[in-house]
Amino acid sequence: MINENFLQLSDSYLFSAIAKKVRDYKAAHPERRVISLGIGDVTQPLPQACIEAMHRAVDEMGCAETFRGYGPEQGYDFLREAIIRHDFAPRGVALDMDEVFISDGAKSDCGNIGDLFRADCTVGMTDPVYPVYVDSNVMGGRGANITYLPVTAANGFVPQVPEHHIDIIYLCYPNNPTGMVIGREELQKWVDYARREHSVILYDAAYEAYIRHADIPHTIYEIPGAKECAIELRSFSKTAGFTGIRCGCTIVPKALKASVGGREVGLNQLWNRRQCTKFNGTSYVTQRAAEAIYTPEGQEQVRRTIDYYMGNADRMRSRLAALGYEARGGEDAPYIWLRCPEDMGSWAFFDRLLNELSLVTTPGVGFGPSGEGFVRLTAFGRREDCDEAMKRMEQWNL
Amino acid sequence: MINENFLQLSDSYLFSAIAKKVRDYKAAHPERRVISLGIGDVTQPLPQACIEAMHRAVDEMGCAETFRGYGPEQGYDFLREAIIRHDFAPRGVALDMDEVFISDGAKSDCGNIGDLFRADCTVGMTDPVYPVYVDSNVMGGRGANITYLPVTAANGFVPQVPEHHIDIIYLCYPNNPTGMVIGREELQKWVDYARREHSVILYDAAYEAYIRHADIPHTIYEIPGAKECAIELRSFSKTAGFTGIRCGCTIVPKALKASVGGREVGLNQLWNRRQCTKFNGTSYVTQRAAEAIYTPEGQEQVRRTIDYYMGNADRMRSRLAALGYEARGGEDAPYIWLRCPEDMGSWAFFDRLLNELSLVTTPGVGFGPSGEGFVRLTAFGRREDCDEAMKRMEQWNL
Repeated sequence: MINENFLQLSDSYLFSAIAKKVRDYKAAHPERRVISLGIGDVTQPLPQACIEAMHRAVDEMGCAETFRGYGPEQGYDFLREAIIRHDFAPRGVALDMDEVFISDGAKSDCGNIGDLFRADCTVGMTDPVYPVYVDSNVMGGRGANITYLPVTAANGFVPQVPEHHIDIIYLCYPNNPTGMVIGREELQKWVDYARREHSVILYDAAYEAYIRHADIPHTIYEIPGAKECAIELRSFSKTAGFTGIRCGCTIVPKALKASVGGREVGLNQLWNRRQCTKFNGTSYVTQRAAEAIYTPEGQEQVRRTIDYYMGNADRMRSRLAALGYEARGGEDAPYIWLRCPEDMGSWAFFDRLLNELSLVTTPGVGFGPSGEGFVRLTAFGRREDCDEAMKRMEQWNL
Repeated sequence: MINENFLQLSDSYLFSAIAKKVRDYKAAHPERRVISLGIGDVTQPLPQACIEAMHRAVDEMGCAETFRGYGPEQGYDFLREAIIRHDFAPRGVALDMDEVFISDGAKSDCGNIGDLFRADCTVGMTDPVYPVYVDSNVMGGRGANITYLPVTAANGFVPQVPEHHIDIIYLCYPNNPTGMVIGREELQKWVDYARREHSVILYDAAYEAYIRHADIPHTIYEIPGAKECAIELRSFSKTAGFTGIRCGCTIVPKALKASVGGREVGLNQLWNRRQCTKFNGTSYVTQRAAEAIYTPEGQEQVRRTIDYYMGNADRMRSRLAALGYEARGGEDAPYIWLRCPEDMGSWAFFDRLLNELSLVTTPGVGFGPSGEGFVRLTAFGRREDCDEAMKRMEQWNL
């Protein structure tokens, strides 16, 4: 009766394993101040524009005249419209309202989108990779069908388009965990591949707000042909600190079709049916907060917080470089991908940073075999903690 | 590549079909005031205790010192603890904190719980039935394996325990759409069946707050043996008007085990893994609102709103009875199950109520074949609308 694919999952989730090590360390050394550059959670409060919008929405919910019950499963038009107008139209991407689905966060959609695909699909994903892509496919029975596309020094950290057919391709840019980005030309290769092979690209753009270089695409739909082959997953978690109030959105263009049972069906229609059946919309209060991100004040407040985090990244990158470390990412993303010194393994370096400097990182190998020999640092901490972490590394006699 | 089970879904969702008819009617008769006793959405605002709790939570999110990012995927302990203490302990049901999973609503969990089961499971559900049970199983490849357990005059509206083996059984009490309840003795039969057959009961208790008769169980765990065979889905939507802010909870007892690949596994552990992989918790603001339901003020405010809706049900039931209609439910549930007069079909009666009285109901047959010849009325409207609807029916020359 039970879905036996669950037995194929690795026993412990990466972040639980880290949390346990940190807990044990703190218990053994209560006098030391542990600084976390580990889990990718934000630390700055929500933008004031969002706070004010939520207070107003809460008041509406307390009044019979303005109370709102069930909202549309796809999200309120006021938010869908704001997303299209601010995030897509200025980049030359025209979307219809019903191509935008508001969710309670990209993690849900990223897991649930698998409902649309057969259990015997082949799946490709870059390695190292966000563990949710792997685990949700294992649960869906596709664990044995995963092809890992390595991102290593051997290919200059640029994943190569596969030479064989793969049905579903996960791409995440700016990348978690490596903090690297993809240019138009490279992304065009993936779109061309997907159109040629009738594959679907699941494009995770959760970190797009961190892009600073003008030539880097913010959405895959800036690439010609992408609407015919790509679903894009977006999130307000890192853009505006929504990790605790939960909101994201998923774009499923109506031009994206696939053949099934001799018929051509639109994935937009399938995802709509999935969401209407198994989801009941995102909190109205949260959706009003998301809308407020797009006001002039909201935009300015969001920009200030992102600048703060990217300031952390800049300071860490330059200090690490000065210390002779090989550090990638952190220029258009809140993550730094740090090579472990002296050919140390990820966990060995993680353990030394924890035990000797009371610093928490994330071992690269936890994101996949090609992450071995790296750790991930996040820039989401407080400025003084990032500085203190770098000071500890400077004074370290490794 | 595409999950072909989606092609087995019926084309139009019941409530969309109704919405279209109502839209067309309103366009043709703009002068008539349409009253909806149709879709089961609440109309009263959120309890004041919840509103105040949300304002406090919003303020916390605007301040670096009190800001909360990612919460536990399973929900905050403050809410899990309140649920156990108020909804289970007083009924003699002891639960551990990690047997309670907070969700963004029962509809999500009700759909997503299917992830735990094989595509070739057999499924049983009472008929008429909440369409989500059907459609989510069709998507999961179990459409052909559904056994409908009729609830009709022929069995006195009491579904019978099947004579053959079924893996998964959906029960919803108080029932949507019929508004009927189940007593301890009948529910014990289902628990005994499930334990004997090693089946899993998915018990939807979304309407338990509407129970008024003292002898009716509020949770399946009041029945001996239920922890070994049942998952319970609960919701704050109808309890406290949370349809727009999204919160529910699912109980998966650790005593509930199933055998898979020769091993015995706990469903609690599987659901925990599913949620950690494909869900990132419910909005902190919403969880604080849910916690406030359990304060003395919250309890009193919730009671007042439920009394209001049940007052609507009482008035409608007694007036309908006086008019000679056969009306069931509405005593421990916010729904009235009304037999169509003169052997009319559900849609025929729906159409006459709409076209002649400007009243919107839900055709019983939309909930399954055994619903033919009935319409569902909800008590969630405003008092004056319920009274006006009954007045129109009194003056009607059918």
